[in-house]
Amino acid sequence: MSNLLNGIEEILLMGPGPSCVPPQVYKALSRPTLGHLDPYFLKIMDETRDMLRQVIKTQNVLTIPMSGTGSAGMEACFVNLIEPGDKVLILINGVFGMRMQDVAQRLRADVDTLEFAWGKPVVPDDVKKHIGKQPYKIVAVVHAETSTGVENPVAEIGALLKGSDTIYLVDTVTSLGGIDVRMDEWNIDALYSGTQKCLSCPPGLAPLSFSEKAVAKLNSRKTKVPNWYLDLTLISKYWGTDRVYHHTAPVNMIYALYESLFLILQEGQESIFRRHKDAHLELVRGLGQLGLKMLVDEPYRLPMLNAVCVPEEVDELAVRRCLRADSRIEIGAGLGPLKGKIWRVGLMGHTARKENVERFLTALKKVL
Amino acid sequence: MSNLLNGIEEILLMGPGPSCVPPQVYKALSRPTLGHLDPYFLKIMDETRDMLRQVIKTQNVLTIPMSGTGSAGMEACFVNLIEPGDKVLILINGVFGMRMQDVAQRLRADVDTLEFAWGKPVVPDDVKKHIGKQPYKIVAVVHAETSTGVENPVAEIGALLKGSDTIYLVDTVTSLGGIDVRMDEWNIDALYSGTQKCLSCPPGLAPLSFSEKAVAKLNSRKTKVPNWYLDLTLISKYWGTDRVYHHTAPVNMIYALYESLFLILQEGQESIFRRHKDAHLELVRGLGQLGLKMLVDEPYRLPMLNAVCVPEEVDELAVRRCLRADSRIEIGAGLGPLKGKIWRVGLMGHTARKENVERFLTALKKVL
Repeated sequence: MSNLLNGIEEILLMGPGPSCVPPQVYKALSRPTLGHLDPYFLKIMDETRDMLRQVIKTQNVLTIPMSGTGSAGMEACFVNLIEPGDKVLILINGVFGMRMQDVAQRLRADVDTLEFAWGKPVVPDDVKKHIGKQPYKIVAVVHAETSTGVENPVAEIGALLKGSDTIYLVDTVTSLGGIDVRMDEWNIDALYSGTQKCLSCPPGLAPLSFSEKAVAKLNSRKTKVPNWYLDLTLISKYWGTDRVYHHTAPVNMIYALYESLFLILQEGQESIFRRHKDAHLELVRGLGQLGLKMLVDEPYRLPMLNAVCVPEEVDELAVRRCLRADSRIEIGAGLGPLKGKIWRVGLMGHTARKENVERFLTALKKVL
Repeated sequence: MSNLLNGIEEILLMGPGPSCVPPQVYKALSRPTLGHLDPYFLKIMDETRDMLRQVIKTQNVLTIPMSGTGSAGMEACFVNLIEPGDKVLILINGVFGMRMQDVAQRLRADVDTLEFAWGKPVVPDDVKKHIGKQPYKIVAVVHAETSTGVENPVAEIGALLKGSDTIYLVDTVTSLGGIDVRMDEWNIDALYSGTQKCLSCPPGLAPLSFSEKAVAKLNSRKTKVPNWYLDLTLISKYWGTDRVYHHTAPVNMIYALYESLFLILQEGQESIFRRHKDAHLELVRGLGQLGLKMLVDEPYRLPMLNAVCVPEEVDELAVRRCLRADSRIEIGAGLGPLKGKIWRVGLMGHTARKENVERFLTALKKVL
């Protein structure tokens, strides 16, 4: 039998994630595996947490990478915070808001939703009116809706909840590392992300952070967390000073995350945000020249996830296949009601560079 | 800030996992990341599943690596199969049996346990008597109890359950790849493992397989699986022919697992089992010469996890620290009631070689 791995080509990853991985991160990934309780690995864990706090802009003690992909971060936030019957409000304008609803309902929360058009942002005034009617234990929203390319007004919603007893839960899977995320300043209580978007690390870990308020809700649970693997009361004892064994940490993935965070802090977050913005503007300009339209209105566009309307006469799948086969470029398809109607062009982390935009535009022009 | 990753040394991993990783697997880990729906990656997924089936010795369609560590495999088996109130029997003779009990109780199963002494195996006759009294929806046992080094009689218990409606659930985290595991022949319905033991891959994935009987129980659930991330009704659509996006697969970890399985099939499972046995016998002989005793009686000893009694006058932690600091060797401590009383010496996968045993014995002799 031949080994398929020898045939892996380098693809320019311009889909909704994973994004391109810098060579230093690949190198980190293949460093010798250490034991999950090895004294040197414990140091790496500590510095990983410190760097995560800097990137998330939080002082939260409970800040760790969960041992699963971004969706495990979502599951972890909800399963640790929800007790059966808790009133939860989910703000929905895309696939990932809907996923939150599904996750919360499975955990027997009493879920209300406020829905907004796909491709439009959540409207803080509507949220304000709604939460004025009744108190919620948790209000949850997606910062960067990966299915539509819309940025939701996370800071404004956080301001509405300030001083209340409500836990504010935010998905930053696609936003973290590409646009500003200010957990403490924006009053966020529970936050999760993924490594494979703007952190430019392969998929496999979910950074997570809980405020003191969220930790207090966790600690006052009447019943055990109904998920042993993601139970933060246990996991925090391994990542904390006690070092109590819970599960075997994904050691090499943590090396990779360490390196990704190291590179981000070295380059500087402001420059990285500018790099994302510049690449995005160049992309929009070039797409305009090809006569293509963006799904989302300009003020709400995410730089790292560009939803491009597929012209009516074009076979969207054929275009993606052609880009992959002839130019080794991956872009993403639309999801749910946007299936067949948009392409999702990612400019995440290491991918967000003008030369990649140019390569993509040249290839796309040829295909169209 | 200096980069800690530059200081990682190669440690001889002789603890309870992770085990040493072959250079080819490190190389696989750092291959270029592909998209989780990339056509070439889908081929790698398919071959990974095929190879997993060969190693687990099963024909089960639902055979996949879950996106989490071994404990996520345990969580996945129970959360997909348990509905609230289901009668579950857990056979316990160590930490991992106890963990099963905790996991199942959190999922609102009605859990009975049959307990056996730590360091002794489960007794099939006792199981037979017990299951004769009342029917169980699930009977669960750990094949290789990593906390004690005991092999449980998984085949014999499977024979007792043959033809019944009971789902037989087995933990093969530590056994798979080091001793024989015959899922179909032994009548196992739900099996999970971990990558970081005898598969010699870094921690991060949990191979899992469900028989048709287990899939039927899953498909006849009255309620959704109360864990979106581990919901096999959804995940199997991604790993199946539909390729419906669920979560972003941990692409590079799957490369590593692919390579590990490739190497195992290349070397041949029988030779690998012999290599484990030989290394184990050499270890036991050498320990005997140093006057050290094994916790487990000879017929039940696992080759890959050796529980060594700490002599009364010896400071067990000091010995482990010394081995790590002076000889770059990691061995494990005892857990629970065995804390301070045993060392756990792992001979898993790539680690299970005579030269490693000799290096360890020489170092241990010096320390003692």
